[in-house]
Amino acid sequence: MGKILTFGEIMLRLMPEDGHRLLQTNRLEATFGGGEANVAVSLANYGADAAYLTCLPNNAVAQAAINSLRYFGVDTSRILRQGERIGTYYVEKGQAQRPSRVIYDRKYSAIAMAKSEDFDWDKLFDDVSWFHFTGITPALSDNMVEVTREALIAAKAKGITVSCDLNYRKNLWSTARAQEVMREFMPYVNVCIANEEDAEKVLGVKAVDADVDGGKLCYDSYKEVADKLKADYGFDYVAVTLRTSISANDNRWAGLLFDGAEYHISKSYDIHVFDRVGGGDSFGGGLIYALSNKYESAKAIEFAVAASCLKHSIQGDFNRVTLQEVNALMGGDSTGRVQR
Amino acid sequence: MGKILTFGEIMLRLMPEDGHRLLQTNRLEATFGGGEANVAVSLANYGADAAYLTCLPNNAVAQAAINSLRYFGVDTSRILRQGERIGTYYVEKGQAQRPSRVIYDRKYSAIAMAKSEDFDWDKLFDDVSWFHFTGITPALSDNMVEVTREALIAAKAKGITVSCDLNYRKNLWSTARAQEVMREFMPYVNVCIANEEDAEKVLGVKAVDADVDGGKLCYDSYKEVADKLKADYGFDYVAVTLRTSISANDNRWAGLLFDGAEYHISKSYDIHVFDRVGGGDSFGGGLIYALSNKYESAKAIEFAVAASCLKHSIQGDFNRVTLQEVNALMGGDSTGRVQR
Amino acid sequence: MGKILTFGEIMLRLMPEDGHRLLQTNRLEATFGGGEANVAVSLANYGADAAYLTCLPNNAVAQAAINSLRYFGVDTSRILRQGERIGTYYVEKGQAQRPSRVIYDRKYSAIAMAKSEDFDWDKLFDDVSWFHFTGITPALSDNMVEVTREALIAAKAKGITVSCDLNYRKNLWSTARAQEVMREFMPYVNVCIANEEDAEKVLGVKAVDADVDGGKLCYDSYKEVADKLKADYGFDYVAVTLRTSISANDNRWAGLLFDGAEYHISKSYDIHVFDRVGGGDSFGGGLIYALSNKYESAKAIEFAVAASCLKHSIQGDFNRVTLQEVNALMGGDSTGRVQR
Amino acid sequence: MGKILTFGEIMLRLMPEDGHRLLQTNRLEATFGGGEANVAVSLANYGADAAYLTCLPNNAVAQAAINSLRYFGVDTSRILRQGERIGTYYVEKGQAQRPSRVIYDRKYSAIAMAKSEDFDWDKLFDDVSWFHFTGITPALSDNMVEVTREALIAAKAKGITVSCDLNYRKNLWSTARAQEVMREFMPYVNVCIANEEDAEKVLGVKAVDADVDGGKLCYDSYKEVADKLKADYGFDYVAVTLRTSISANDNRWAGLLFDGAEYHISKSYDIHVFDRVGGGDSFGGGLIYALSNKYESAKAIEFAVAASCLKHSIQGDFNRVTLQEVNALMGGDSTGRVQR
Amino acid sequence: MGKILTFGEIMLRLMPEDGHRLLQTNRLEATFGGGEANVAVSLANYGADAAYLTCLPNNAVAQAAINSLRYFGVDTSRILRQGERIGTYYVEKGQAQRPSRVIYDRKYSAIAMAKSEDFDWDKLFDDVSWFHFTGITPALSDNMVEVTREALIAAKAKGITVSCDLNYRKNLWSTARAQEVMREFMPYVNVCIANEEDAEKVLGVKAVDADVDGGKLCYDSYKEVADKLKADYGFDYVAVTLRTSISANDNRWAGLLFDGAEYHISKSYDIHVFDRVGGGDSFGGGLIYALSNKYESAKAIEFAVAASCLKHSIQGDFNRVTLQEVNALMGGDSTGRVQR
Amino acid sequence: MGKILTFGEIMLRLMPEDGHRLLQTNRLEATFGGGEANVAVSLANYGADAAYLTCLPNNAVAQAAINSLRYFGVDTSRILRQGERIGTYYVEKGQAQRPSRVIYDRKYSAIAMAKSEDFDWDKLFDDVSWFHFTGITPALSDNMVEVTREALIAAKAKGITVSCDLNYRKNLWSTARAQEVMREFMPYVNVCIANEEDAEKVLGVKAVDADVDGGKLCYDSYKEVADKLKADYGFDYVAVTLRTSISANDNRWAGLLFDGAEYHISKSYDIHVFDRVGGGDSFGGGLIYALSNKYESAKAIEFAVAASCLKHSIQGDFNRVTLQEVNALMGGDSTGRVQR
Repeated sequence: MGKILTFGEIMLRLMPEDGHRLLQTNRLEATFGGGEANVAVSLANYGADAAYLTCLPNNAVAQAAINSLRYFGVDTSRILRQGERIGTYYVEKGQAQRPSRVIYDRKYSAIAMAKSEDFDWDKLFDDVSWFHFTGITPALSDNMVEVTREALIAAKAKGITVSCDLNYRKNLWSTARAQEVMREFMPYVNVCIANEEDAEKVLGVKAVDADVDGGKLCYDSYKEVADKLKADYGFDYVAVTLRTSISANDNRWAGLLFDGAEYHISKSYDIHVFDRVGGGDSFGGGLIYALSNKYESAKAIEFAVAASCLKHSIQGDFNRVTLQEVNALMGGDSTGRVQR
Repeated sequence: MGKILTFGEIMLRLMPEDGHRLLQTNRLEATFGGGEANVAVSLANYGADAAYLTCLPNNAVAQAAINSLRYFGVDTSRILRQGERIGTYYVEKGQAQRPSRVIYDRKYSAIAMAKSEDFDWDKLFDDVSWFHFTGITPALSDNMVEVTREALIAAKAKGITVSCDLNYRKNLWSTARAQEVMREFMPYVNVCIANEEDAEKVLGVKAVDADVDGGKLCYDSYKEVADKLKADYGFDYVAVTLRTSISANDNRWAGLLFDGAEYHISKSYDIHVFDRVGGGDSFGGGLIYALSNKYESAKAIEFAVAASCLKHSIQGDFNRVTLQEVNALMGGDSTGRVQR
Repeated sequence: MGKILTFGEIMLRLMPEDGHRLLQTNRLEATFGGGEANVAVSLANYGADAAYLTCLPNNAVAQAAINSLRYFGVDTSRILRQGERIGTYYVEKGQAQRPSRVIYDRKYSAIAMAKSEDFDWDKLFDDVSWFHFTGITPALSDNMVEVTREALIAAKAKGITVSCDLNYRKNLWSTARAQEVMREFMPYVNVCIANEEDAEKVLGVKAVDADVDGGKLCYDSYKEVADKLKADYGFDYVAVTLRTSISANDNRWAGLLFDGAEYHISKSYDIHVFDRVGGGDSFGGGLIYALSNKYESAKAIEFAVAASCLKHSIQGDFNRVTLQEVNALMGGDSTGRVQR
Repeated sequence: MGKILTFGEIMLRLMPEDGHRLLQTNRLEATFGGGEANVAVSLANYGADAAYLTCLPNNAVAQAAINSLRYFGVDTSRILRQGERIGTYYVEKGQAQRPSRVIYDRKYSAIAMAKSEDFDWDKLFDDVSWFHFTGITPALSDNMVEVTREALIAAKAKGITVSCDLNYRKNLWSTARAQEVMREFMPYVNVCIANEEDAEKVLGVKAVDADVDGGKLCYDSYKEVADKLKADYGFDYVAVTLRTSISANDNRWAGLLFDGAEYHISKSYDIHVFDRVGGGDSFGGGLIYALSNKYESAKAIEFAVAASCLKHSIQGDFNRVTLQEVNALMGGDSTGRVQR
Repeated sequence: MGKILTFGEIMLRLMPEDGHRLLQTNRLEATFGGGEANVAVSLANYGADAAYLTCLPNNAVAQAAINSLRYFGVDTSRILRQGERIGTYYVEKGQAQRPSRVIYDRKYSAIAMAKSEDFDWDKLFDDVSWFHFTGITPALSDNMVEVTREALIAAKAKGITVSCDLNYRKNLWSTARAQEVMREFMPYVNVCIANEEDAEKVLGVKAVDADVDGGKLCYDSYKEVADKLKADYGFDYVAVTLRTSISANDNRWAGLLFDGAEYHISKSYDIHVFDRVGGGDSFGGGLIYALSNKYESAKAIEFAVAASCLKHSIQGDFNRVTLQEVNALMGGDSTGRVQR
Repeated sequence: MGKILTFGEIMLRLMPEDGHRLLQTNRLEATFGGGEANVAVSLANYGADAAYLTCLPNNAVAQAAINSLRYFGVDTSRILRQGERIGTYYVEKGQAQRPSRVIYDRKYSAIAMAKSEDFDWDKLFDDVSWFHFTGITPALSDNMVEVTREALIAAKAKGITVSCDLNYRKNLWSTARAQEVMREFMPYVNVCIANEEDAEKVLGVKAVDADVDGGKLCYDSYKEVADKLKADYGFDYVAVTLRTSISANDNRWAGLLFDGAEYHISKSYDIHVFDRVGGGDSFGGGLIYALSNKYESAKAIEFAVAASCLKHSIQGDFNRVTLQEVNALMGGDSTGRVQR
């Protein structure tokens, strides 16, 4: 097994402390995160050989972003250093009926401005056996559509396994543009990951009977979605995260994995949300770990859901948990008794 | 529509951080709050032209109180600067079976010591079309009873709409004194606001079958209260907030508005309490905004209750929410899903 | 009634702030705690004459441990100053399915290294009428087994009432060694306190049908345990805390007291856990207060359980509550309404 | 005397706490600042009627910027709300031989992208008697050159006094472009403010013998600069701040005012730098206050220098001092004795 | 040697963190302090048997004040619990030319309102051999003048040594009233402590040639003051602290002790001020420790000055240093080399 | 050029925030540091290929130590994971006359308990061309003497350059034992680094006329020391740091390098100390970087002294500066002017 390379944008994440509203006080918690970087950190935490690719300017803030990945053992040696700014986002934690809010300031970032010629995929894919990107990567700019296309072509040529988290972002592109681009890219993808809304927004496949706010998980409806996606694009695996929001604090969480033969539905968890952002990425990180380690489908989806269940209890985009902790939860210990 | 002027005491509010008990650590969060100031901030946040009147000494702490109101766009130009101290209160957040606790240190404050001759109501009411006070204002001192009386007489003379939140405070006056004073003032009031205990304590009108700790809201009982209040004092509107406390963290919250013709009962919300203090004031702020903007009664009570539901998710006395946020919740979006 | 002396190890307790994982940020909250010290603080808070005995090195950190006890009025004049280090432990708060974690670094501490000849029990027991230790004390080292044995012999000789919280710690000794030592010590004990696992681990008495993770409290099973303990060792009182863990945040909590004549089962509380560590000690503190003040059994167990219910809402090992607060909860006020 | 309107960019300012390097910890202090906004806050603090004009997007971060100005009583009603982002800058405090560092992320900000047609100067100058801008404003973009030009023409037409702080920023434009633009603008300016380097960089007038790092203030050299500037552009007043840097912590600070007749050199201060950023702006704020209040030249320069001396002792861009405090220092009380 | 009892007011002390101005951020550091309490803490830190007497209300804030004294081992058992409020003061740290500022909110405090009959001096002086008060105590109210008078009469009757720090506070009383009261009290005093201004303000004895702001210590002038005080009131000892303020950060500090026979002038220290408040009290604490332990005069003044030199490096009113640390500095080690 | 491997102990470093005394508040800043780890971080920051070797237990605190090194790009792959505890130290920052204090709690740490057979030097030295240790490493335990001896023998055999910072620690071993061990080790060392006291304590070579507290640097005296060391042990280079302490805040700092041919004395710097700990290590890191990059001696000592001058302005053990920053200071820019 070679390296798992994930590719996308990492941003400075600014959050008011202590559940305050944005700039209610003058303190911000500054960390870093982004869909594909979050996946790389998950993988490194489980002991996988993870590398991350992006483009960052040559200043102290961007260096700190790189350092924050090295902290977890992610290989950052492929990261390009050019451009003018690192994308930034503000996040405000929700409480009960008040939703969490995200304000993006990511336009004109170094990665969005990077060009096709900046990426030598032959060299970047050296030693790589798995490539992961998300729907956010091409949504950053037209340049990034082209860059991602070239990455996919190169990956295919080298026999690299490709996973994609559809991850629709309405403020980055329209559903029309998303579908135009992503439908072209899907044939290159082996493992397709979606949440309860992405499949419709990004690929036009709608769950018939989803009640995402009603506290009820509609498995059958998502089986149909998975089935249709498999039929349309020939994925090896389709994975869907299933979240119902009771309030900003209380969610129910489960996952479904279709391996072409069977539908595997995980245990569901009643989650008390400590930090919601990065939840989907931690599912992706868990799933890629499981599949790249040849877990059976039923175990793979349980691992991914347990990993992402734990993420909701951890502050920041990164899922700071060990293999042992995921295994313990997956093994049934969910009572939260003190571990001495 | 002219300015909405609110009148009362604003205090320095000192709270231990992070859910600690008082002085468990050496850090205090210092903000400002007070029933009528809280209403003014709510109104300014919704875009109304709100002004606030009080009396504050000429020092840096009092100046910060004024600045904290200007921050939200409240007109503070009428505030008197004299006297020796700003009232202070300590608040400790409750957890589960441990209740929140408030310790007042507000005696001898500049506003409590202010005298009748310090207030030129003719000038203070310039451009004002709505006047709001609470039962706390006259409770501060005998001087303040006199000052409030003069304000009410002047308001009446100028055709200004008057609203009053009964807001009984047992450590400021007895129920006997409260009833003596407030019964005299009620005929000047157009809009009467009360919580589930105020009507009894301040005006002697008791809900027959209220079970405030049992988690059950007894609407019929409060309809009778509203009916009786209307009959006794001829209010245009009687509004009652209905809270049941399951624990310090979990409350149920709803409201009732009697417009003389019909009883309008709002949706009820299951609240996870982040900061309880100022909850009633945010209801008043919402209600005054709605009524001064000629909302229909049913919509007015929904607006006020949605606004105050959100307040419970926000730290500090002030309700830091926008019109859009209240409308979104009132419109039915209470699942707390991330807003990106 | 003389002094109540508690004896054991107090440690520096280091916890990440704001629910973070260990060293996720560079800030740690530094407080002090330890089973027997926690009991002494509870007792001092209720107005009892509590003293604490341990051994601590002569440096600024250890001095702060002593000062933190004096803060609450605990008599620290018996504490020995010698040795090289104060034990330390790290605690990370759990969230939902993620359990709280404790990492101990207490080996080679001053108290663990202290020797028999360092303790002059005749002098240390001066004015003492009640002596409290836990199963942790002898578990610290073979030296401490010997020291504890001598303390018990001296206490017996002086007619001092002895209480013991069995408190099994698997990382300090094996169940085999624990049973060997503690079975020898039990005949000296008047009041035996255990949680739902201790009786089995420390004395080999297993509850037949305990379902500690299922959210159901199995009283009958623990009555049998209490009965067996009484029969084996002749305790005056056997008290058992009954916790069921639904998640790291949500526990149910109750207690049972067997006074040789009757089984008294307390009210049970649905606890929202703010800080779980020290919960059992706060039960012990409440029980010793109640019994040493000659409360009737039924009232004693209610006091101990109410006290420890409140502890779960307070950060740190120490139960920072007053007699009035425990009485209020025991008296039925558990709705968490604001106290102004 | 009408309003004093200042015009430019206000940015989010992010600074590590406690003298740390950037992102050494995960906490940032978030405040707001910008040359012209800083001047407006100084003026409001002295009681002047100050207004601020910029362009900001419609999000919570930009709203906080506006609120932070209202806090001090600055009139923000002219501010345009459009565009996508608020400029941001990071600042790291220096220590001794390690200089303070500023990283700008201000490109593509709402004000830089604003267009000529967004500004209705006739309306914006309503009630305005003094207009202040700096060399940073036109440096933001070619659009801003055009907008500033139109502002100056309109100001001239209305007889508004114009002040300009040359404020060269090498990362925004070249000296060539700066000189091209600013030489065109200077004839509209009544009061020209420069630091020891600006005159050379922006207008090509070099001090012959300035030793800015040597701890020696070369007054004669700067007299010549002032003389030359007056001769070239016909300013009513030329003011120059004179800073010598001994280390990041220790500076010497003085000022020179040439009123066409005489050179007035202020007292010099040995400054212990607490926060250096905004020091020049606080000089501008003091000078405009003094001149608009018809202070004599000698007193005006003393006021401006005393005001800016105090700024170096205050964290953040804004000079949080009162008229009384500036007067006290100007009056000779510089020993820092406790004021009780 | 019996207990040393100090008597006066302890206040809640609120200070912005990190050198900010008052309420520049919403965080305040809350500690406790007051002239006589500070002396008691110093004494306890050196191992003396110190007790403190004041009057405090029965609430959680006042309890924390008491606990903060017990923390250091001060005997608080004599403290009266009655009245309504604890005095409060705000302090803002100065920087360079910006002075530290203190805002008092101490009027109507429990101790100021306490009455003669609340104090049973016979009982309060039990076991006491030294009594210390300051000029602040009688300045609090007319009641306190009476109470202090009775204390002095009782102390005299019991042969207790009395020390007094003149400590003039201009916002509490006029120099006229101060002189009226204090001249009456001086004959009861054995050890008189004054700073460079007190003798003039409180007793009308002016130093002829003091240049307190010029950085030069005028010893001869203060010798005359000491001589005159001794002559007028017959003190056993007159001690004077000599401070010159170069800036808020830089002071020079020395002391003079006249024992009736000789004038002893201490070493002088160049102080980098970390926290100035409580500096005089730490001198008093050191002096009382030295004299009550029969140090020779020359050594006593060196001890007091070294102790108070260290205080300026410590945050908060209390002098958190050990006997060893004072001895080390007094012994000549002032280079600040790391102690490992 | 291969890897530079440094070997020793890394500890958890706990420091009170904001210049407080130890446990004056309940917050500690937790970072990591240790002489040899600090050198590795310096090297990695300059772009060198640095690796670090130690032994750490398998828990979350030790993992954070490793992560904190990976953050800077240090290769941690050789670190052994075994044993029970990570060493800990407390540090309290000094102020003026109050010295910084360090309390060690490092006994029984994993590295001190590690044994000879745990280290396979043949494998550990793979790819290594420079090996660095300090006098602290063998001082940890007798085991570590043996381990270090084996490392030196292996290094010699492989032709690896060896540097050693003598770094005497009096609480770890006596000067007698230090001299016994270190004299044996010195013949293996190519580059010997010492501070003004080490040569005497560790190797018995005393500077004749050093006045470390008098603010005067006695170069000649240290030239003799260097000469003698060279003569005794045949070092290629002898480097000596020269510190004079004026106060805890103010030091003077310079360095001397003897390359066998000439004595090179660096520029001296007046340092305002922000954090003193790690100052010597940052000198070592700079020197090793310079020498391993074949800098001429005069430039090498300037680089090392400039690097370590900057360290004193940075919080924590690690020298968080870039090559560019050291070069800038070495190049003469020491005025601390803002870098925009």
